[in-house]
Amino acid sequence: MKPLGPIPPGFAALDGELAIAGRKASELVAQAGSTPLFVYSADLIRARVTQLRAAMPQRLALNYAMKANPYQPILRLFNGLIDGFDIASGGELAMLQAAGIDPAKVSFAGPGKRDAELEAAIAAGVTLNLESEGEAARALTIAERLGITPQLAIRVNPDFDLKGSGMKMGGGAKPFGVDADRVPALSRQIIASGAVWRGFHIFAGSQALDAEAIADTQRQTLELAARLAEASGAALPHCNLGGGIGIPYFPGDVPADLPRIGAALAERFEQLPDVLADTHFCMEMGRFLVGESGVYLTRIVDRKVSHGEVYLVTDGGLHHQLAASGNFGTVVRRNYPVAIASRFDAPVEEEASVVGCLCTPLDRLADKGGFPRADVGDLVAVFCAGAYGASASPAMFLGQGPAAEMLV
Amino acid sequence: MKPLGPIPPGFAALDGELAIAGRKASELVAQAGSTPLFVYSADLIRARVTQLRAAMPQRLALNYAMKANPYQPILRLFNGLIDGFDIASGGELAMLQAAGIDPAKVSFAGPGKRDAELEAAIAAGVTLNLESEGEAARALTIAERLGITPQLAIRVNPDFDLKGSGMKMGGGAKPFGVDADRVPALSRQIIASGAVWRGFHIFAGSQALDAEAIADTQRQTLELAARLAEASGAALPHCNLGGGIGIPYFPGDVPADLPRIGAALAERFEQLPDVLADTHFCMEMGRFLVGESGVYLTRIVDRKVSHGEVYLVTDGGLHHQLAASGNFGTVVRRNYPVAIASRFDAPVEEEASVVGCLCTPLDRLADKGGFPRADVGDLVAVFCAGAYGASASPAMFLGQGPAAEMLV
Repeated sequence: MKPLGPIPPGFAALDGELAIAGRKASELVAQAGSTPLFVYSADLIRARVTQLRAAMPQRLALNYAMKANPYQPILRLFNGLIDGFDIASGGELAMLQAAGIDPAKVSFAGPGKRDAELEAAIAAGVTLNLESEGEAARALTIAERLGITPQLAIRVNPDFDLKGSGMKMGGGAKPFGVDADRVPALSRQIIASGAVWRGFHIFAGSQALDAEAIADTQRQTLELAARLAEASGAALPHCNLGGGIGIPYFPGDVPADLPRIGAALAERFEQLPDVLADTHFCMEMGRFLVGESGVYLTRIVDRKVSHGEVYLVTDGGLHHQLAASGNFGTVVRRNYPVAIASRFDAPVEEEASVVGCLCTPLDRLADKGGFPRADVGDLVAVFCAGAYGASASPAMFLGQGPAAEMLV
Repeated sequence: MKPLGPIPPGFAALDGELAIAGRKASELVAQAGSTPLFVYSADLIRARVTQLRAAMPQRLALNYAMKANPYQPILRLFNGLIDGFDIASGGELAMLQAAGIDPAKVSFAGPGKRDAELEAAIAAGVTLNLESEGEAARALTIAERLGITPQLAIRVNPDFDLKGSGMKMGGGAKPFGVDADRVPALSRQIIASGAVWRGFHIFAGSQALDAEAIADTQRQTLELAARLAEASGAALPHCNLGGGIGIPYFPGDVPADLPRIGAALAERFEQLPDVLADTHFCMEMGRFLVGESGVYLTRIVDRKVSHGEVYLVTDGGLHHQLAASGNFGTVVRRNYPVAIASRFDAPVEEEASVVGCLCTPLDRLADKGGFPRADVGDLVAVFCAGAYGASASPAMFLGQGPAAEMLV
C-alpha cells in the first residue's frame, strides 16, 4: 500500500460522508447537478487569510495571485479579504474587471506580455512588473501613444533561489525579470521617464514548506531590494516580496511554520535601512491562500479487478487534476490526499488505485492507496484541489470538457 | 548546446521562411489573424495514409483515433481517407456526429464510460469496446431499456506489452480492458445476450519506433485473439489490433520501418487459424496519422539575456504544447523539433532557449537549442504538433485561452 497525502484540516464526516463547509458531499453534488465538481470553501479561505494576517507583520500587505484559481466567485471573495491582485495575462485582467475589481489594486507580471496586453493594462491603471529592458521600452512607447502615465515596477531576477521550493523562479539565468546587476540602470531610466515608479517585484520561488528557508529568502530579498534601491538613487515606494509558502500535498509534508516566518519578517522590518523606511511591502500568494480550500469530487463509474489489483474508475481525471495525476512539474509520482467521500469515516479495508475516465495510463488519481471498500456510485474526493486544478488542466482532452465549480 | 528533435519530412524554406503546404508561415499567420496558431497540412495527412496503405496488407482496415486531434476539418478529411473512427468519450461522439460522420464506422473505448455515454453510443449504433464485466452489464441493461440491439466488443487487457512503447496499455494489472483469462466467459455471455458480437480490441501500447517490437506485439495479439476466440466458441468477426506506431520527436529518434511491419503482418495473415479466417482486422492510429502534419507557430515578443543566456520569449507556450514543454508523461525533458520559422534556411548562429509567455519555469519549448539569431517579431515553429497538442494542453491556464487552428 502506498501512502496518501495528508488531508488538510477543516474537513470532517457528517452522517458518514465528507462535509465541506458543513454540507455533505452528496448534497453539494446534487445541487451542482453532476460530477466531476470542484467545491471551494469560503470559510477555509477566510480562515487562511486570518491566520496569515495574524502571523505576519501588520505592515505587510497581502496579494492574491489569481493564476492559482480564477473562478469568479473566488475573485469576488478575495476582493473583500486582501489588498491586491496579481495577474499574469490580459485574459486575467479581463476576468478581474468582469468581477468588478479595481485595476488600481492589480499588478501584472509575466515574461511574454504582448503589446495589446501592455496597452490594456496601462489604460486600466494596472502596475506593470517589467520583465526586461525591451518590455520597458515597449510599455513606455505605448503609454506615450495613449497619453497615459504608466505605473511601472521592475521584476528583478534575484541572484538566489528559494531553497526547497517546488518552482524556482530565481538564481542564475532565468526567463523572468531583469538580472539584478542591470536593475539600477533600468530603474533610473523609468524614474526619469516620468512614469509612476512602483518599485520592485522579487520572486525567488514557490511551494516551500521550510520556514527557515522562506525567512532566509525574505532576508535576502530585503537586502537585495535595499541594495538595488540605493543604486537606483531613490527610496523604494513598493516592494513585492513574492510568495513562497507552500501547502502539504504529499505523505510526510508538514505545513510551513507561519508564526516563525512572520516573526523573522517583523524583526527584519524593525531594522530596515533608510531607503526602505517608507516602502510598502506585500507578499503575493496563490496556492497558499486557496489550495487547501478546494475539493475535487468525482463519482466511481466502474470497480474492476485486474490481476488481483482493484481499480476504482471515476468520471473525473487528469483533465481536471493534471498535477494530482503526477503529470505537471513532478519527477516522481506521489499520491495527493484522496478519500472515498461517501464513506469518509469508514476504516481502510483494501488497497485500490483510483483512476480517471481517460483512455491513457497517465490518468491516475491515487496509486495503490488504502481505502474503505468503495463501489460504483461512491464519491471520491481529491483534496488540495483549490489551486492549479480546473484552470491548469487540459479540460478538453478526449472530448471531456470542464468540471463544474462551486464556492460554498 | 542541446540537440533539437528531427524536423519531419515535408517542410521546406520558401523565400527564407518555413512553408507549410507550399504557403509561407507569415502568410498563414496573416490569414489566421494571430499567433499562436496550429497549422495542419492535409497533403501530409493524405501522404501518411497512402504510405501506410502501401505498406500494410490490403486486408487491414485503418481507423483514426480522434483523441489525437479532434479538429473538425481533420475529422472530415479522415472521413474520406480511412475506414473507421475510434472515440474515447461521449464528447468525442458528439464531435464526430457534428462533423457528419456515420456512427456505424465508430468504436468507443475508455475505462470510465458513464451511463449517459453508453446510452448515446448504443442509440447511435456505435460499437462499444467493453472495459469490464460491470460495463457489459450496464450496456446490456441500457440497450434493453432502449429496445436497441447493441454492437458489443471486448477490450482485452493483454498479458504482454509493447516493448519500447511510450505508453504501455497492457502487461499485468491495468485499468483498461478485461484480463485475458476472463474474456472467454464474457464473450460467451455477450453472444448469448443477442447483442451484435463485434469481437476484440487489443491495445498493448503506443508510440513505439522499433518495427521488430511492433511486429512481435502484433504476432502476440493475433495469437491471443485466436486463443480467446477458440475459448469463446465462436469465429471472431472483428479484431482491432491497436496502434503502436510512433513518430520521431527527439534527437536520435528514427521513424518506424513500415514496410517491415507490413510484411510481417502480411505473413501472419497468410497463416491465420480457422477461427480468424474471416475476421475483419483493423489498426487504430492517432499520433502516427496526424502528429507530423502539424506545426505550432508562435511569435517572439521579447528577446532577453540573463546571465549570458539568450531567451526567446514567445506568445505561445505549454498551454498549447504541454508535451513539448516536457510536462506530459515524460521523465527527462528533451527538445522537440523547433525552428525559427521566419529564418528557416538561416544557419545556426547562437544558443537560445525558447520559452512561452506563462509565468512558470515549466513553460519551455526548447532548451538551449541552436538557432539563427532571432528577434522580436520572428515566428517560431514547433513541429510534431499535429497530435496531442491543442486538445491535450491546459488552454485556459493563466487566462490564455485556446490557439487558432487551420487545415491547409
